[in-house]
Amino acid sequence: MSFPNIFASRMSGMKASEIRELLKLLDQPDIISFAGGIPDPALFPVEKFQAAMNRALSDGHHAASLQYSTSEGYLPLREWIAGQMAALGVECTPENILITSGSQQALDYLGKLFLSPGDTALVGWPTYLGALGAFNAYEPCYDQLQPGANRAAGDFADQAAPGRVKFAYLSVDFANPTGATLTQSERENILDLAEELDCAVIEDAAYQALRYEGAPIPPILALEMARKGKIDACRTVYCGSFSKTLSPGLRIGWVCAARPVIDRMVLLKQAGDLHTPSLNQMAIAQVAADGFDAHLSCLRASYRARRDRMLAALEQHMPAGVSWTRPEGGMFVWLTLPRGMDGAKLLAQALQEEKVAFVPGGAFFADGSGKNALRLNFSSPSHAAIDEGIARLGRVLRRALYA
Amino acid sequence: MSFPNIFASRMSGMKASEIRELLKLLDQPDIISFAGGIPDPALFPVEKFQAAMNRALSDGHHAASLQYSTSEGYLPLREWIAGQMAALGVECTPENILITSGSQQALDYLGKLFLSPGDTALVGWPTYLGALGAFNAYEPCYDQLQPGANRAAGDFADQAAPGRVKFAYLSVDFANPTGATLTQSERENILDLAEELDCAVIEDAAYQALRYEGAPIPPILALEMARKGKIDACRTVYCGSFSKTLSPGLRIGWVCAARPVIDRMVLLKQAGDLHTPSLNQMAIAQVAADGFDAHLSCLRASYRARRDRMLAALEQHMPAGVSWTRPEGGMFVWLTLPRGMDGAKLLAQALQEEKVAFVPGGAFFADGSGKNALRLNFSSPSHAAIDEGIARLGRVLRRALYA
Repeated sequence: MSFPNIFASRMSGMKASEIRELLKLLDQPDIISFAGGIPDPALFPVEKFQAAMNRALSDGHHAASLQYSTSEGYLPLREWIAGQMAALGVECTPENILITSGSQQALDYLGKLFLSPGDTALVGWPTYLGALGAFNAYEPCYDQLQPGANRAAGDFADQAAPGRVKFAYLSVDFANPTGATLTQSERENILDLAEELDCAVIEDAAYQALRYEGAPIPPILALEMARKGKIDACRTVYCGSFSKTLSPGLRIGWVCAARPVIDRMVLLKQAGDLHTPSLNQMAIAQVAADGFDAHLSCLRASYRARRDRMLAALEQHMPAGVSWTRPEGGMFVWLTLPRGMDGAKLLAQALQEEKVAFVPGGAFFADGSGKNALRLNFSSPSHAAIDEGIARLGRVLRRALYA
Repeated sequence: MSFPNIFASRMSGMKASEIRELLKLLDQPDIISFAGGIPDPALFPVEKFQAAMNRALSDGHHAASLQYSTSEGYLPLREWIAGQMAALGVECTPENILITSGSQQALDYLGKLFLSPGDTALVGWPTYLGALGAFNAYEPCYDQLQPGANRAAGDFADQAAPGRVKFAYLSVDFANPTGATLTQSERENILDLAEELDCAVIEDAAYQALRYEGAPIPPILALEMARKGKIDACRTVYCGSFSKTLSPGLRIGWVCAARPVIDRMVLLKQAGDLHTPSLNQMAIAQVAADGFDAHLSCLRASYRARRDRMLAALEQHMPAGVSWTRPEGGMFVWLTLPRGMDGAKLLAQALQEEKVAFVPGGAFFADGSGKNALRLNFSSPSHAAIDEGIARLGRVLRRALYA
């Protein structure tokens, strides 16, 4: 039989993630990788997870932790998250929270919730690769969000016809891949645009807790709360994650939004995988409730030092004509190469000649542009690996530029 | 804003599962529930999970168990599953196995893989409610599979026009909700039909390991392997699960199929939630490798006794005109009531008058027929609860029939 003949039309838009393919390279010990976007496993709160798992599997709890559960998620965890959201300026109840299997699943379900084929999603140029992957399954069109200088709402609406703009997706703090942070007025502008387009805003807050300098800026959802007074009147859907703070391998994220959105997402969760693993939710709830802020301080100190190390190494080793971002948090620095250079070709050279890896920029652009850029991760490599890896990258770039 | 205006068209087909709503009743201690389809938590291999979690979180392993992982799944678990599949007559490699977050997620991704709006899925009348829930998101049409006496392939194809039949979905052993098992010749007939229609077969094997009497019948995938010699030539997609054997709360299932299917499903998994939790896969791999067959024997003995108890209680308490299945395994007995009775109305009475719960039959029919039926679960209640609950149900039925 010929399977491709019976696959759904959406499958023509699904292709392998370059990041995931690259992750396979990490197994080779002599490669220095700035690809991936993974936390340093040395910083996982392992002892706390051991204690939490032992408790969740103890007599009083294993009948719940190993059993089926409700699609909404574990109530004590949703209560804890509602408290965190309140501290960010988003007063809400557990009924406004859905637990997802990582925030990647939130993006998949939000694509499923909003996008009919031909509808438009507004995204950054570049944007998070995994968001494009999730949305692609629902056959959208993309248009370019430029938070600092957006086109008029009418222009976006015209471009979207005969479909319509369903949402603006963006990561506001230390975004993947650029490391850029939106100012408060840029956030307000996004809200204004969404009001005019009567569309949703999907606010990806995966990196929000990892700020290394500067004052926190309220999330878009908090700014909308300040305008409207109650969450159930808000159009912003906030996606949070424990992947960068506690553990990505347990796959726990959440969505905080108006009840009409959460209620429909619960249906999608029920139909999609019934619920996020009970044990994992119970363990995360216990570890989060026990010294989360102290753990964040420790993470921030470690990652801040690596960011500084990478910025210093870039200063030292990058040839003229290459520029880069100076993120206030998160895990990534974004390099812009001279026009005409191709990050994908450069990667092949970098791997072969110098055994150093990164993610080429083109993958992050909905239209495939942005080839003269690349993403560097600083949360995973050691200081020594950063020094050595950036020196290697400098040699590759010099050869490519001056060959 | 009015969210419903911007939801995707598929959302009109998504509604709350009656089973999930009913599960909320289980919290009331004075209700005897034959609703749900949950294993007895007293049978979970808790000590083995404690040991497996401690190992997975120990020094040598926590850097993997708490970290991001590959979308395909944990290799040792896929190897173990490939061995199990071989014992069922399906020679395959780990490349033919994808780990999913429960087999519910496999059904969601298979709907996503195969169904464009208007395509036809062949399902039983009744069929597993959660399969309809998963597929509904992809806006299919349904046609009625009757494994014992199917219509001609041409008739199915005509009915499906202008779409086409993409797959036949069925649970072959002790199916949810009926408890029915397909004979080997019925399985061969399904394969013949699928060959003529050039469509896939989705074989849901969630209950396969729970056989209490009679000789095992080869899975459809094994019968197709016997015809074709190699898995990569097969059109059958086998969905397995640890939810009924080890723990549902850890959400671990798998798909075994030809490489072209697995390769595309890996893309969907990557875009959908990156991967199934690393820790859960490692724990299941260890617990499965250590005395799985002995654990199954223990489960079978316990559930067999409950099935026998329920069948005896039905014999004693059911009024004339009510008939039921005698499953060779699984977790369910299916009751057929006299025509004109409505299981949903009966449930309201049963809850109010006798505090006994079940799932009304209509929910399991793609066309909403089958109201004069109900599903009873016997894996969860104790012997005493079975005796008392079936007596209560008998009283409700008597009153409804003779009032």
